[in-house]
Amino acid sequence: MSRFAALLLASSITLMAQPRYTGDGQLMLPSDYREWVFLSSGLGMTYDSPNAPGMQMKPSFTNVFVNPAAYRSFLATGKWPDKTMLLLEVRASSSKGSINQGGSYQSDVVAIEGEVKDGAKFPGNGWAFFAFGKSNTGKMLARTQDCYSCHLQHGAVDNTFVQFYPVLIEIAKIKSTLTPVFIHESAGQR
Amino acid sequence: MSRFAALLLASSITLMAQPRYTGDGQLMLPSDYREWVFLSSGLGMTYDSPNAPGMQMKPSFTNVFVNPAAYRSFLATGKWPDKTMLLLEVRASSSKGSINQGGSYQSDVVAIEGEVKDGAKFPGNGWAFFAFGKSNTGKMLARTQDCYSCHLQHGAVDNTFVQFYPVLIEIAKIKSTLTPVFIHESAGQR
Repeated sequence: MSRFAALLLASSITLMAQPRYTGDGQLMLPSDYREWVFLSSGLGMTYDSPNAPGMQMKPSFTNVFVNPAAYRSFLATGKWPDKTMLLLEVRASSSKGSINQGGSYQSDVVAIEGEVKDGAKFPGNGWAFFAFGKSNTGKMLARTQDCYSCHLQHGAVDNTFVQFYPVLIEIAKIKSTLTPVFIHESAGQR
Repeated sequence: MSRFAALLLASSITLMAQPRYTGDGQLMLPSDYREWVFLSSGLGMTYDSPNAPGMQMKPSFTNVFVNPAAYRSFLATGKWPDKTMLLLEVRASSSKGSINQGGSYQSDVVAIEGEVKDGAKFPGNGWAFFAFGKSNTGKMLARTQDCYSCHLQHGAVDNTFVQFYPVLIEIAKIKSTLTPVFIHESAGQR
């Protein structure tokens, strides 16, 4: 197999990424998620008061990746298809190192979280959340966890925080796929 | 053509990305660079003193993307192949918006910069730097600009700041491709 054919095969595997689960229902971390499409990164983002306990610690970066087929589908439609996988990679921040003198750059992985749309597996709206920690299998979070209600109430598009993904929020506006609640909230903030 | 074949074709185009130039030598911004491999993001990074003039402004995020074929080559060898393209996307930061109360998330593109390895085109070590601003063509920076000497002196691997790309720095250590100067500097900082 030529070098290009090998690269193309690897691309096809990445493109065909589907959620896979262990026998006890944990989500398997895709080994190539760092080659998925990057949506955005935040530093020290918080939905609580920045003065709440714990918020004075060194902030973490949060990188969000999505499987490429879901990304391209979103570009075309403004919606997430079934089998969408979003992975949130939490990384520690450093400030001084090498020649860097200020601001923050990323260092080690602290934890990984996932949000998956799999209609056949998850009743209701099809979404489920998983916490990997530093493991390569992620335990599904209980339906009573805040993430479910918060994403449902505040996600700009279909249970996802597209409002923090600058390329995709513009697509959602064009395709008119923003949730009514998000449109209402945005109008109130202007 | 099936939907999957169309997606595979799009992947192949992304995989085959090569630097392209205008008649007057400007680098053309690849339209799909947001689907390239994300290396890391920083916020407010500075190689000058953080107290220098201008450093008190609202900090920007810096996302770095590389063409997928170059990324996979680096994973295999710890080195950048010819035709490597690194793009630095500078985005403004916001703090309060939607339900976010603290920290920083990314908003609009402020500017894009590029670093390209193209041995047939750029004599010496083959690297050249380009500034796009908000245009889709980037002007090559003069050889006298600081970026050339700084990357040559301080880049952990072959004129690039791999020390700020947490996945790749581990590869470079394993493959023993760190520059002698970087190894020496790192030892001094321990």
